[in-house]
Amino acid sequence: MKIKVINPNTTQSMTDKIGAAAMDVANAQTQVVAVSPRMGPVSIEGHYDEAISAIGVIDEVLRGEAEGFDGYLIACFDDPGLGAAREIARGPVLGIAEAAMHTASYISGGFTVVSTLHRSRIILEHLVRAYGMEHKCRKVRTTELAVLDLEVEGSDAQSILVEECRRAIAEDGSDCIVLGCAGMADLAATISRECGVPVVDGVASGVKALEGLIGLGLSTSRAGGYARPLRKTYVGSMAQYEPR
Amino acid sequence: MKIKVINPNTTQSMTDKIGAAAMDVANAQTQVVAVSPRMGPVSIEGHYDEAISAIGVIDEVLRGEAEGFDGYLIACFDDPGLGAAREIARGPVLGIAEAAMHTASYISGGFTVVSTLHRSRIILEHLVRAYGMEHKCRKVRTTELAVLDLEVEGSDAQSILVEECRRAIAEDGSDCIVLGCAGMADLAATISRECGVPVVDGVASGVKALEGLIGLGLSTSRAGGYARPLRKTYVGSMAQYEPR
Amino acid sequence: MKIKVINPNTTQSMTDKIGAAAMDVANAQTQVVAVSPRMGPVSIEGHYDEAISAIGVIDEVLRGEAEGFDGYLIACFDDPGLGAAREIARGPVLGIAEAAMHTASYISGGFTVVSTLHRSRIILEHLVRAYGMEHKCRKVRTTELAVLDLEVEGSDAQSILVEECRRAIAEDGSDCIVLGCAGMADLAATISRECGVPVVDGVASGVKALEGLIGLGLSTSRAGGYARPLRKTYVGSMAQYEPR
Amino acid sequence: MKIKVINPNTTQSMTDKIGAAAMDVANAQTQVVAVSPRMGPVSIEGHYDEAISAIGVIDEVLRGEAEGFDGYLIACFDDPGLGAAREIARGPVLGIAEAAMHTASYISGGFTVVSTLHRSRIILEHLVRAYGMEHKCRKVRTTELAVLDLEVEGSDAQSILVEECRRAIAEDGSDCIVLGCAGMADLAATISRECGVPVVDGVASGVKALEGLIGLGLSTSRAGGYARPLRKTYVGSMAQYEPR
Amino acid sequence: MKIKVINPNTTQSMTDKIGAAAMDVANAQTQVVAVSPRMGPVSIEGHYDEAISAIGVIDEVLRGEAEGFDGYLIACFDDPGLGAAREIARGPVLGIAEAAMHTASYISGGFTVVSTLHRSRIILEHLVRAYGMEHKCRKVRTTELAVLDLEVEGSDAQSILVEECRRAIAEDGSDCIVLGCAGMADLAATISRECGVPVVDGVASGVKALEGLIGLGLSTSRAGGYARPLRKTYVGSMAQYEPR
Amino acid sequence: MKIKVINPNTTQSMTDKIGAAAMDVANAQTQVVAVSPRMGPVSIEGHYDEAISAIGVIDEVLRGEAEGFDGYLIACFDDPGLGAAREIARGPVLGIAEAAMHTASYISGGFTVVSTLHRSRIILEHLVRAYGMEHKCRKVRTTELAVLDLEVEGSDAQSILVEECRRAIAEDGSDCIVLGCAGMADLAATISRECGVPVVDGVASGVKALEGLIGLGLSTSRAGGYARPLRKTYVGSMAQYEPR
Repeated sequence: MKIKVINPNTTQSMTDKIGAAAMDVANAQTQVVAVSPRMGPVSIEGHYDEAISAIGVIDEVLRGEAEGFDGYLIACFDDPGLGAAREIARGPVLGIAEAAMHTASYISGGFTVVSTLHRSRIILEHLVRAYGMEHKCRKVRTTELAVLDLEVEGSDAQSILVEECRRAIAEDGSDCIVLGCAGMADLAATISRECGVPVVDGVASGVKALEGLIGLGLSTSRAGGYARPLRKTYVGSMAQYEPR
Repeated sequence: MKIKVINPNTTQSMTDKIGAAAMDVANAQTQVVAVSPRMGPVSIEGHYDEAISAIGVIDEVLRGEAEGFDGYLIACFDDPGLGAAREIARGPVLGIAEAAMHTASYISGGFTVVSTLHRSRIILEHLVRAYGMEHKCRKVRTTELAVLDLEVEGSDAQSILVEECRRAIAEDGSDCIVLGCAGMADLAATISRECGVPVVDGVASGVKALEGLIGLGLSTSRAGGYARPLRKTYVGSMAQYEPR
Repeated sequence: MKIKVINPNTTQSMTDKIGAAAMDVANAQTQVVAVSPRMGPVSIEGHYDEAISAIGVIDEVLRGEAEGFDGYLIACFDDPGLGAAREIARGPVLGIAEAAMHTASYISGGFTVVSTLHRSRIILEHLVRAYGMEHKCRKVRTTELAVLDLEVEGSDAQSILVEECRRAIAEDGSDCIVLGCAGMADLAATISRECGVPVVDGVASGVKALEGLIGLGLSTSRAGGYARPLRKTYVGSMAQYEPR
Repeated sequence: MKIKVINPNTTQSMTDKIGAAAMDVANAQTQVVAVSPRMGPVSIEGHYDEAISAIGVIDEVLRGEAEGFDGYLIACFDDPGLGAAREIARGPVLGIAEAAMHTASYISGGFTVVSTLHRSRIILEHLVRAYGMEHKCRKVRTTELAVLDLEVEGSDAQSILVEECRRAIAEDGSDCIVLGCAGMADLAATISRECGVPVVDGVASGVKALEGLIGLGLSTSRAGGYARPLRKTYVGSMAQYEPR
Repeated sequence: MKIKVINPNTTQSMTDKIGAAAMDVANAQTQVVAVSPRMGPVSIEGHYDEAISAIGVIDEVLRGEAEGFDGYLIACFDDPGLGAAREIARGPVLGIAEAAMHTASYISGGFTVVSTLHRSRIILEHLVRAYGMEHKCRKVRTTELAVLDLEVEGSDAQSILVEECRRAIAEDGSDCIVLGCAGMADLAATISRECGVPVVDGVASGVKALEGLIGLGLSTSRAGGYARPLRKTYVGSMAQYEPR
Repeated sequence: MKIKVINPNTTQSMTDKIGAAAMDVANAQTQVVAVSPRMGPVSIEGHYDEAISAIGVIDEVLRGEAEGFDGYLIACFDDPGLGAAREIARGPVLGIAEAAMHTASYISGGFTVVSTLHRSRIILEHLVRAYGMEHKCRKVRTTELAVLDLEVEGSDAQSILVEECRRAIAEDGSDCIVLGCAGMADLAATISRECGVPVVDGVASGVKALEGLIGLGLSTSRAGGYARPLRKTYVGSMAQYEPR
């Protein structure tokens, strides 16, 4: 099977890291391709970045359909463009926040999401509610690390994250950490070892959840709110995205 | 004060109707300008249309800032691009679903949202939860009318809507109707008269709520999740939307 | 239009302050009259004061109907007598807690209510739930200031409130303050300036929300739980309030 | 122990019926006194009646304190004046809606409340949420019977109620009925026999719950929101209720 | 009436203490018998202990039915085997967590559960949600006391508990404590005296709630999810529990 | 990897069917063993059957640990013994209700659970809440089919189920069916074909979810409420299950 992992931001070093994390856990038979869109922000930090990035996600899914992909993973913890992508993909589409939280719910009595900038907190809290995870997610913690800080060699990002995860365990009573940014995908093992609890990364979780769905022959239902887009005119610079 | 009413779809007849409904309720001192974006779908029916339409909304808000608008109303009941628009506008930004539901909550013990295609139901139910209206919204009803059916002279759209509203009152026990599409803005008075309950239209409600906020000197808080977008590079076709 | 602002307690200095705050934001065409009832407690601090004060609110609404008012604002953050007032008024009726919280939800990702005595906390938390604001209200904070402390010239009430609001921003992660007592109506601007976040006062918010509803021709639905009181006998000292 | 059962309406025939139902289940050592207040409506059907009736409830609790009662039951399914009564009574105070729903939760997997006029539905649904019973209460059903219809000899009230209860079992999947009006207290046994499910009446349930609390030496906590009313001035016709 | 209090663990000293607490509050006419099962763990601390202990509870209820008991109290704060026991007992069955929380809700604006090991927190939080108590229970606190620490003469368990209860009042704003372990039944009076708030013990509360239900002639509904077990074959070591 | 699928009831024909469904979707490298416990009920229909069956589940997990299994699936839609199993297994443990609902949430805007006897409805509704699926699960439907009816060759069980699923799509507005019994595992493909929506079976879903978790190296956190059982004495017939 072929899975397309879309890093909705355009920072290639992060895409490479995400791709490596995805391939690391994929089955031998699974072909993983990790991409950044042709357009959009270099990092996604807030509602504006997120709305813009959805176009890039859509663009990549449309291209992916032509390329014959069996499923898609949206590798930004805001899950931008998820609903739109579901309507246009033949196969299943997951967001990493969604995949990470459902996966964590299988192994944890209560987890903390540890993310980047404070400004993302309300977006993440909204996702916690949207996915029905209020009973499992004890807190969304932010570190005031910028997304691209995670790309800087030799930064103290890792130690800041470990510190915040330790606080989550001690203060929130959480027994598991959900990493709240795709750019942390390479840190899961280290943080788990340092903190002594399972650490769930959405990139890895999402790949396995997609393999599961594709293996089951399951994809987004067309019988309800994720039916294919109706054929209609799109005007101006968006005409290229007109549903066919 | 100057309020920009953005119909996120590109159907000018609907924009005209929305503009008329907005001006009809605006204070004498309020200047209302109703526009359709330069790009996007002719109607918004599903997640894909909605994601694409957010670009048009953003485009109009960015232009509106240059034009000196004091507030914005997003006149599609999916409230597309609302969070993004809040980050880039100096003044307050409301969506019509948001404005209609909060307004209805002031005058109703329990309302029903009556909307268009069945496929929109999960988007609207999500908004009901997102705005904390589960306790007031008894049901989201759809009629399988397409958005543009509402634009067709002599269609039976009005009678279909009146029928559905009557069912809402009889079967849901609702005492108020919230119109679930901006294209119904001209029908509020008729439906109210025919059904004998208050009918809340988000376009009119949104204009009054904006007048209130602007009159109070209140706008979106910059101290949390709606802070202005961080300056960063946007690439490709989205470079024009790079935050300044 | 004529709006009656009812301060449910009988402290005239507070009524004057509330009236000034209301007039300050009202449209030029809006006539605002602020009153205290002819009976009831000098301040409302707990369930008992609140239940008693509802009679005064009802008394003023009944008189207001004779006087031709178009809408009513109940200017105590417990919203006493709100449902009863809705049943007997031709026009819309709002409570300031209700108006403040809905207004804050338009501009904030998460707010804190800052109020007076600790004993009011459960009443306010109940209103937060009753208005569907659990997703927006991060915390109800109390200061152990008595309501009438706010009336004392030269008291340190303002600095205590500013201090608590700062804690709300730092500890709760709130980006907006909702003032939890009508007696704080004159402090909104100062607190906002000192704390750097929007501060929502229910008196001002309520006036604007009423102007909006009246401007829209909307009033409480009669088709459900707020139908006019049924004609029936009231005995003893309450005979004067018998529904007509 | 001495329990005062307060029927908040002033219809003596209903008070007698309530008193009989209360005494019927009371322990031999329990002295039950059932009263109607000296003032207020002959029946309670809506928010206005309810707010007015709270004064009568308060009046009876204040007198009851002088008379040495150990606990109070408010025998109207709107639970009017409950919070106020708790602040002024030495002993515990329960409302019959509260007592009935908690009692039903002990013996039922899912119950339906069957009540009188449709207009009361939103009040009762609010109580369902306020008492945390959304997970147990499958529906609030109303019959459009007026409260005083239940007092009319030879009316078809009983058969209408039995019919509605049967619908509750068949359509809601409920395994238990909660009677939604104190005036139905005499019908519990008959309805249970006819419908084949437990029927919970709040008057009987409330007496037993009060006997339990008093037997345990438990009463309303004074350490939080139900502290005794603060001493302060009450003016006008409410001066007589000034806290002492 | 005859009530069987089942301490689901097999520690006789705790059963004796529980029996004493139960008898202490029972009516003169109530016969209380406290037992430990013939099989199971000496203390219940986690999901595994709890699942195993359910067999002992079932065993005692089956024997109790032969012995003619009118009701059962499961005296472990995890409420193990509660649903199963309800299906096989003629009379009502309560768990002490359930009884304590409903009882506390009658007298408190917000309570804290204070329990033993941290590992029990997710079980107790689950019960808080299952009983609809999120609006009343401000926090579940644990002390890292083991259950059997409470049985050790001269231990500092009592002072540790008093300390935690004081924190609950100061930090959680709670006005009432719910004791989160049957082994604390003897400490309610002392903790209440030391902390100045009502303290609710589930053993005592449960006995009174059962007396109430039995006095009302109410028992578990057979018309829904608690119908008697269907007759069917049980194999192996569980054959003895085959429904008859 | 080795996965043990435990059918908690002792009906071998059902275990065979479950095993076939599990193997059908398992990866080539996954070894699946399906078993019935050595003790317990022939079918699980209610709380009593469920509590007894937990012992069989525990027994099989304990044996499985000796046999070197990497993960466990509990193949009854009540998820009996899930928490207990998590405490004693080195690898992850899933219930089929849990796995099916999380899986369905990935591909559906709103699903209906279709199950067997009406008496199971409250157990399943409880699981819907416990797994945070109220926003996705539109209804739990039951068919009054007994579990073992599904084992009878030539019964009309399949047509009854198809009929109920059609009602779910038409009346609930669901776009996906979750099969509410392990005994339906062989019917997923047929029902999906007949009804035109995705049908999620928990056995297949659970195998894929386990493969995912094991592939990620994730297992139940030991740092919280699923820590290994404490060593302690178990007496009587349960002594054999004493934690080691």
